[in-house]
Amino acid sequence: MIKRTFAISLLSLSAILAPIYASAANEPIQPIKAVTPENPDVAELGKMLYFDPRLSKSGFISCNSCHNLSMGGTDNIKTSIGHKWQEGPINAPTVLNSGMNLAQFWDGRAKDLKEQAGGPIANPGEMAFTHEMAVKVVASIPQYREHFKKAFGSDTVDIDRITTAIAEFEETLVTPNSKFDQWLEGDKNALSADELEGYKLFKSSGCTQCHNGPAVGANSFQKMGMFKPYETKNPAVGRMDVTGKEEDRFVFKVPTLRNVELTYPYFHDGEAATLEEAVDIMAKIQLNREFKKDEIAKIVAFLKTLTGEQPKFDLPILPPSTNNTPRPQPF
Amino acid sequence: MIKRTFAISLLSLSAILAPIYASAANEPIQPIKAVTPENPDVAELGKMLYFDPRLSKSGFISCNSCHNLSMGGTDNIKTSIGHKWQEGPINAPTVLNSGMNLAQFWDGRAKDLKEQAGGPIANPGEMAFTHEMAVKVVASIPQYREHFKKAFGSDTVDIDRITTAIAEFEETLVTPNSKFDQWLEGDKNALSADELEGYKLFKSSGCTQCHNGPAVGANSFQKMGMFKPYETKNPAVGRMDVTGKEEDRFVFKVPTLRNVELTYPYFHDGEAATLEEAVDIMAKIQLNREFKKDEIAKIVAFLKTLTGEQPKFDLPILPPSTNNTPRPQPF
Repeated sequence: MIKRTFAISLLSLSAILAPIYASAANEPIQPIKAVTPENPDVAELGKMLYFDPRLSKSGFISCNSCHNLSMGGTDNIKTSIGHKWQEGPINAPTVLNSGMNLAQFWDGRAKDLKEQAGGPIANPGEMAFTHEMAVKVVASIPQYREHFKKAFGSDTVDIDRITTAIAEFEETLVTPNSKFDQWLEGDKNALSADELEGYKLFKSSGCTQCHNGPAVGANSFQKMGMFKPYETKNPAVGRMDVTGKEEDRFVFKVPTLRNVELTYPYFHDGEAATLEEAVDIMAKIQLNREFKKDEIAKIVAFLKTLTGEQPKFDLPILPPSTNNTPRPQPF
Repeated sequence: MIKRTFAISLLSLSAILAPIYASAANEPIQPIKAVTPENPDVAELGKMLYFDPRLSKSGFISCNSCHNLSMGGTDNIKTSIGHKWQEGPINAPTVLNSGMNLAQFWDGRAKDLKEQAGGPIANPGEMAFTHEMAVKVVASIPQYREHFKKAFGSDTVDIDRITTAIAEFEETLVTPNSKFDQWLEGDKNALSADELEGYKLFKSSGCTQCHNGPAVGANSFQKMGMFKPYETKNPAVGRMDVTGKEEDRFVFKVPTLRNVELTYPYFHDGEAATLEEAVDIMAKIQLNREFKKDEIAKIVAFLKTLTGEQPKFDLPILPPSTNNTPRPQPF
């Protein structure tokens, strides 16, 4: 479990006392909260597992392969590469700030990060392993068992603990202190004139109806194609796959716009290569509006102010397999 | 360029003054030298490039994919996975301490790390890119150009600078202060009785004829199969591919045994899954000797004392592509 606390810098503290903050508090977007794991040993174990390709059948694909923390928590390709180079069905969403998502996956089929973490491991198109084998691999490594003991009180390894640990690590992956958050917290000079105009346009044209809250999205499911249908060759139908209801066809989780500068390409099919293209299409199909080129440029300038401080940590060193560890089967 | 200096701890300083050190200096293995990059900005840039999958055609494979610094600088699979999941021809050697290699690759076809670094980028079976495209990608990213300016004095991006930077980073990847180095430096309690007996056996049976020096190998080419032929389905002929001489058939660079506990599986074909198996086979084909089970166990115990401190650094954060950056082509 995780404690969320507002990151209160000296700057924001003075902002609390200043009248400006009262108006910032009325903005549709709130600053990112800093996160402290309640159990750092669980998060530390989760970090190792997140980077460990031995959770895949091939021994080559880890969580970090597609949710690469060097690259905004994504893989920056349209759809991901799975076991034996299978072409994934959908764009990998960023893991950054994903603890704020109302549910996980584009269609929200996992209720939380823990439930999500088990998915790719056992998905034949992704890591192509089984939970049983993943547990067997990890349990065969004494140094891992020591970490489980430290984290959970006993050295039992099971999939519940593996996914709990990965989720605990993922909860720490927040990106506070973006230029926009500095502005929200009272630093009027944090945004340029263009960035601020972009934000005003983002609000006044209705983007914040869906992209709001601390994650600037991620808190509702919405239909893609409110005014005009979204044209795509991607067969995903979104929420309908979960609820079975026709009205949920093309309803997807609204993605977070935090760090959107880093999480290209865009949309569930990854077909929008640039932010300019994504803003243009969103305006047309969701708001029935055609932005001019300079309006798009300003909104994009604003969106780039949502890039926060990226999680900073040592590359984890993984404990070696033993003679009893099942070997990977890459080919 | 790199300065190599002996890592002189307080412990080793006192050892220098003690008679014990005189005998340690006569050992066939020497302690690992610490390394300080002459130009940290070049090494820092190299670290980013080392982790950047945009140096591959797919945007998915980086240097770190097969020389994973979480896993002893290897991928821990028999032969590596290349572009579109091609099966590699040979086991990925560790990048750790590779600056000490007399040449690079198993057959020594690259004279140094800089020459090596360009190989996989343009190899159709590995990263499957071209040097021209890699340069185009990196040069399209303003934040990278700033790093080039800082590192090299101008923001020109070319393959020479890219490989220079990667090599400079790789030169820093040394693993000092192993248990065995502590023993070499005078700490008589650093090794257990079994580990010390294993080392004595390793010396007396002739392993140190090839596995010597600071890297415990990596300083000569030797024939695999001195007394008996090595049986393998792997078609690699080693040094003969470079020299064209029949006498160089099955002559390979002697691998370093530093961190050998982490760099499984073993041999150029990756066919020895365990250290026990590797020691047994080496004894038979290189020394014409059959070790007993307890002798193998002691040598393995010694070999595990060669695991040093792994390089410790923050996971690098990579600058985002721009609208002008050529997009990856994974499928």
